[in-house]
Amino acid sequence: MLIVMKAQATDVEVTGVVNSLQERGLEAHLSRGKERVVIGAVGDVHSVTQSSILALEGVERIIPIAHPFKLVSRNFKNHDTVVDLGVVQVGDRAITVFAGPCAVEGRDVVLSTAAAVARAGATGLRGGAFKPRTSPYSFQGLGSAGLEILAEARALTGLPVVTEAMTPQQVAEVAEMADVIQLGARNMQNYDLLQEAGRARKPVLLKRGMSSTVDEWLLAAEYIVAAGNPNVILCERGIRTFSQRTRNTLDLSAIPLVKELSHLPVIVDPSHATGHWSLVGPMARAAIAAGADGLLVEVHADPATALCDGGQSLTPENFGRLMEDIELIARAQGRQVARLRQRQPQSTDGLTAASGTSPVPQD
Amino acid sequence: MLIVMKAQATDVEVTGVVNSLQERGLEAHLSRGKERVVIGAVGDVHSVTQSSILALEGVERIIPIAHPFKLVSRNFKNHDTVVDLGVVQVGDRAITVFAGPCAVEGRDVVLSTAAAVARAGATGLRGGAFKPRTSPYSFQGLGSAGLEILAEARALTGLPVVTEAMTPQQVAEVAEMADVIQLGARNMQNYDLLQEAGRARKPVLLKRGMSSTVDEWLLAAEYIVAAGNPNVILCERGIRTFSQRTRNTLDLSAIPLVKELSHLPVIVDPSHATGHWSLVGPMARAAIAAGADGLLVEVHADPATALCDGGQSLTPENFGRLMEDIELIARAQGRQVARLRQRQPQSTDGLTAASGTSPVPQD
Amino acid sequence: MLIVMKAQATDVEVTGVVNSLQERGLEAHLSRGKERVVIGAVGDVHSVTQSSILALEGVERIIPIAHPFKLVSRNFKNHDTVVDLGVVQVGDRAITVFAGPCAVEGRDVVLSTAAAVARAGATGLRGGAFKPRTSPYSFQGLGSAGLEILAEARALTGLPVVTEAMTPQQVAEVAEMADVIQLGARNMQNYDLLQEAGRARKPVLLKRGMSSTVDEWLLAAEYIVAAGNPNVILCERGIRTFSQRTRNTLDLSAIPLVKELSHLPVIVDPSHATGHWSLVGPMARAAIAAGADGLLVEVHADPATALCDGGQSLTPENFGRLMEDIELIARAQGRQVARLRQRQPQSTDGLTAASGTSPVPQD
Amino acid sequence: MLIVMKAQATDVEVTGVVNSLQERGLEAHLSRGKERVVIGAVGDVHSVTQSSILALEGVERIIPIAHPFKLVSRNFKNHDTVVDLGVVQVGDRAITVFAGPCAVEGRDVVLSTAAAVARAGATGLRGGAFKPRTSPYSFQGLGSAGLEILAEARALTGLPVVTEAMTPQQVAEVAEMADVIQLGARNMQNYDLLQEAGRARKPVLLKRGMSSTVDEWLLAAEYIVAAGNPNVILCERGIRTFSQRTRNTLDLSAIPLVKELSHLPVIVDPSHATGHWSLVGPMARAAIAAGADGLLVEVHADPATALCDGGQSLTPENFGRLMEDIELIARAQGRQVARLRQRQPQSTDGLTAASGTSPVPQD
Repeated sequence: MLIVMKAQATDVEVTGVVNSLQERGLEAHLSRGKERVVIGAVGDVHSVTQSSILALEGVERIIPIAHPFKLVSRNFKNHDTVVDLGVVQVGDRAITVFAGPCAVEGRDVVLSTAAAVARAGATGLRGGAFKPRTSPYSFQGLGSAGLEILAEARALTGLPVVTEAMTPQQVAEVAEMADVIQLGARNMQNYDLLQEAGRARKPVLLKRGMSSTVDEWLLAAEYIVAAGNPNVILCERGIRTFSQRTRNTLDLSAIPLVKELSHLPVIVDPSHATGHWSLVGPMARAAIAAGADGLLVEVHADPATALCDGGQSLTPENFGRLMEDIELIARAQGRQVARLRQRQPQSTDGLTAASGTSPVPQD
Repeated sequence: MLIVMKAQATDVEVTGVVNSLQERGLEAHLSRGKERVVIGAVGDVHSVTQSSILALEGVERIIPIAHPFKLVSRNFKNHDTVVDLGVVQVGDRAITVFAGPCAVEGRDVVLSTAAAVARAGATGLRGGAFKPRTSPYSFQGLGSAGLEILAEARALTGLPVVTEAMTPQQVAEVAEMADVIQLGARNMQNYDLLQEAGRARKPVLLKRGMSSTVDEWLLAAEYIVAAGNPNVILCERGIRTFSQRTRNTLDLSAIPLVKELSHLPVIVDPSHATGHWSLVGPMARAAIAAGADGLLVEVHADPATALCDGGQSLTPENFGRLMEDIELIARAQGRQVARLRQRQPQSTDGLTAASGTSPVPQD
Repeated sequence: MLIVMKAQATDVEVTGVVNSLQERGLEAHLSRGKERVVIGAVGDVHSVTQSSILALEGVERIIPIAHPFKLVSRNFKNHDTVVDLGVVQVGDRAITVFAGPCAVEGRDVVLSTAAAVARAGATGLRGGAFKPRTSPYSFQGLGSAGLEILAEARALTGLPVVTEAMTPQQVAEVAEMADVIQLGARNMQNYDLLQEAGRARKPVLLKRGMSSTVDEWLLAAEYIVAAGNPNVILCERGIRTFSQRTRNTLDLSAIPLVKELSHLPVIVDPSHATGHWSLVGPMARAAIAAGADGLLVEVHADPATALCDGGQSLTPENFGRLMEDIELIARAQGRQVARLRQRQPQSTDGLTAASGTSPVPQD
Repeated sequence: MLIVMKAQATDVEVTGVVNSLQERGLEAHLSRGKERVVIGAVGDVHSVTQSSILALEGVERIIPIAHPFKLVSRNFKNHDTVVDLGVVQVGDRAITVFAGPCAVEGRDVVLSTAAAVARAGATGLRGGAFKPRTSPYSFQGLGSAGLEILAEARALTGLPVVTEAMTPQQVAEVAEMADVIQLGARNMQNYDLLQEAGRARKPVLLKRGMSSTVDEWLLAAEYIVAAGNPNVILCERGIRTFSQRTRNTLDLSAIPLVKELSHLPVIVDPSHATGHWSLVGPMARAAIAAGADGLLVEVHADPATALCDGGQSLTPENFGRLMEDIELIARAQGRQVARLRQRQPQSTDGLTAASGTSPVPQD
């Protein structure tokens, strides 16, 4: 932590800061520049409240040097985390694609969409039973009944299921049924939810908040890992900017940035990022070219009847084309789209072999 | 709802959209411009999923016309909502100022700060017992013990207390003790929390999310009101922008905008908005001049020892000056800073007279 | 300048950076933290290209410590700059209000608007003869003929005129006629234009770019002052954010921030910031309460016929109310709206007494 | 153009708007919804100032329906524009890569960098002789002397040269020497510069402004094309957002969006977008996968000595790897990196064959 003093700070104020740091058990290194003094604080700075230093007389600003996250940091663990879903892995070089409808709207549409995406080569099924909606008057999802439909779709197709938990209470129910617990963008800083997901024995897919920095996103992952669950998959889904022709602005530079800073796998949701089905294919290809570990894509057997996000959903035909395109991009980089392994017997009880054994990093 | 067709949309596609609207029970009004057709959908458009229309062939975009919020809308109720806290009201012309430390860190500091802000004319006490923190390694608040300290401070000063509930579970405990339940910016779209607060019998202070539009903010309030609690106070606390010399960018134009769109009172938090104590005073004055119903200000008896947000906290002396300044601004506009009424006997059971009687709008 | 090394930087890399700094004539101060090394570079860091340091092996990031601006900095000159327009001053405690139409559309409307704003107490006339327009098909202004109309309006009312120059070539012509040369938001980083305005002998009103930081804004002012013109008035006019119910987001915290960092006066344009006439009054009041030195307000004798920005223009009646309101806010803070002094004889040749003598700071 | 009336608008106000539209020669179509009236204006709406309609009593907002741009629109011209640089074309399926230093700093470094990028397969040379710099104290470029060095580098390598013109005056000099005139992000709305480039007989590379919408970008291109120059290459270079770990946020969704809206080619600058050399490769690959027509990449023979943007410059070795990577991505999509054709004799006079003949679209 560096403390930059104001240009007009007095010697008494500089000494005040030095003493204050020493009282907190830190060493203080002074560097007198032409215009102002900078004080380096060395020691266990995580224990010190930066903002209280900022309140000292003569202090202009605080510059944190150490990354605020630890367990998710590549400095802490230099090997890539691979999250094992039993029939497929996320974060080895193969590309995992979760596809399916925005919301679980009914049995028929989910089963037919699931069958279609499985045929096209998807390696996971997405679909929301519990739906966060901006308006209280929008369709809010089928809830527990939706989870049963997803279980049926999984039995039919063999696809592992990712679905969202919106509250700490829903985590256990979702974890019981699903292969991956999704935490949504609006909940990225819902700390009780993060901690409850951290206590679950299923992997967690953590979407980036729509106005979250990469550091805040990694700190949210840190909450989950610190609570005991090392199996976190990050998901970039676009950030909010002034640009309004797309629903959000997909920040693909976050992919290589996360790979530099963290050992966690990172996938991309081009559907929510763009909001238009015609932009999903190009952004999916770009995500893979940028090094993403996989995709989360909205597909609907009949987008024009969808209760949620029809405009950004692909038809099964368009999804088939997308899978062909990303296979080609993947191969150009010495990678490939993942193939499902045979599901192991005990997976029928809702726990995959790998994530059922022990919540330690798979690497 | 207006449906703008693509420039190259065919007659068959236009007819397809018209038929689809009629199947959903809506009337369709066609307007053929020089370049493209626009279709107006008239009827109960709230029941129709816009995004599914967007998936129809030939549709370029959907333009909602009706406001998505109802109960909180000025169209629905044209009189200002006044939220009664027993000893003071929020939303009549007088200005309510909630002041106190960011976090409830300990008994002494809270009691001394509470006494100081009361002396300076504050009409409410703020302070967090449950604290949402970006890092799992930051001080997380004293929890229930913190609520007891706040209760003691209230008994001492007579100030009504606003404090945050972070989870649906905490709502009952906070509602039991506090006069106003605060919902934080990170939780603005935590829908279970909104609904639980909507079932509480205490007023709710709803902070704007850091990347929320005014419409999304009002829809979050709509969740609370639709769940049965009409006593919502909105709080602007800055939005996230590219500008980094302040913690957030205070969007004061939201004040008159909310006043045009909604009947709910709106206050301003200049402390979180700016992140620097030296900017708090000017922004507090600006907020009052823009028509805000009140302020939420961080004050700490000794900012340099604060465990949270010391850099943006005012000393009691500076807070005293702020109160004098805003009194002058208020009087220049024919308003004044609110004065505490005598607390009524039944307030000791934690329920103020007004909000304890019936959860109907006070207007 | 501080150089933060990567956590895994080697001693050889650290030595490489130290040597490189010394070759550039700087001292290097090492601070070894628990995780990484920070190197402080002391000396004439303005001469060193930070980005080249960033290219050295092992360097993670560069943190500038000194402000990048000099002449406009309060560290350089601690007295407030007062810009003298002959009949009124900008930056002393009195509030200067420039009002008038967006564009000079015709003689009658400009003269009648000018007369109306003068009657209401405006201390300056605004109006664009040269208009920057997003579309090549929009009305582009009357050009030189517009300047003549403004000169006639000035002769009629005595109001000093601010009008925009869009190109270096226009600067001389605008400086000949106007009392203040306006540089628009889109041109804030048009460096040739800044330098040409820096060579002019009239004050410059520099609008903040719509996505400019405060530092970039002050650096743009530095270009003007460094070129020889100390009479710069800054103008906050809103920044671009995700929020779309207003044309821009007015960043009023920039007012006290600029006052801390710089000695230049700063005024506010609530019309472009909000884009809606009904929000102009509240934001004008807020600007004055935040400490702005003045306002730039769009007023049109008949907004419904305006060729430009009618929706954000006040009628003369509404402008009259705004003037009364800000007078009250000003007086509450011990200030007042400026009154025009008698124009001095030589002002008829288009040069005010003060700015005509010598381009030195007025303080 | 649609005019949305306020919910409480009276019949008199509705009639007022209808009359006002008819006076402007437009038809008015009324659509009465449950809550409010929407009026469709049909006719030559480009001639009507929307903002003046907004000033009419009872009007809530205006919704433009027609695209504001014409000549650059795919509705106007459905074939892709191919810009011919004599030895290579931009906008056919082959990928054009302009590489070179940020600034022309000296003869040796430019010649050695040019030779290195030519060897690695670049099809164009980039480098700034005139440099827009945020600070007046930064290196401002070599100016005309820099253009001579670029000419020498072109003679040596055969690479067509793109270099920036910052002012209308520089356009002729740059057009004389260079193969493509670059207009920078800060100048995207410098309308005199756009128009002067529109009168030049060399292609123009138009960078997106850092806070410009896609519509504003296309309108800036419209200025150039409307002035007579159809050979415009768009360049996405990142937009400004809250995210601060990269210099800007690369908006790759702009690529397919521009392809839907316009016939102009679009390339990507991953160097300015990210600001870190280690992120340039992944973003270059992603750009090609998203369908970009080419790249603009900073390469420097020795980044650690660069006077400008060393931190985001690739070494020749890393650039060689990037070229290999994008060739693979291109081939996966049935495309390839462009190869230089033999330069034709008349190119020595500084005019390529194609752009020298006639300023009509190449398609």
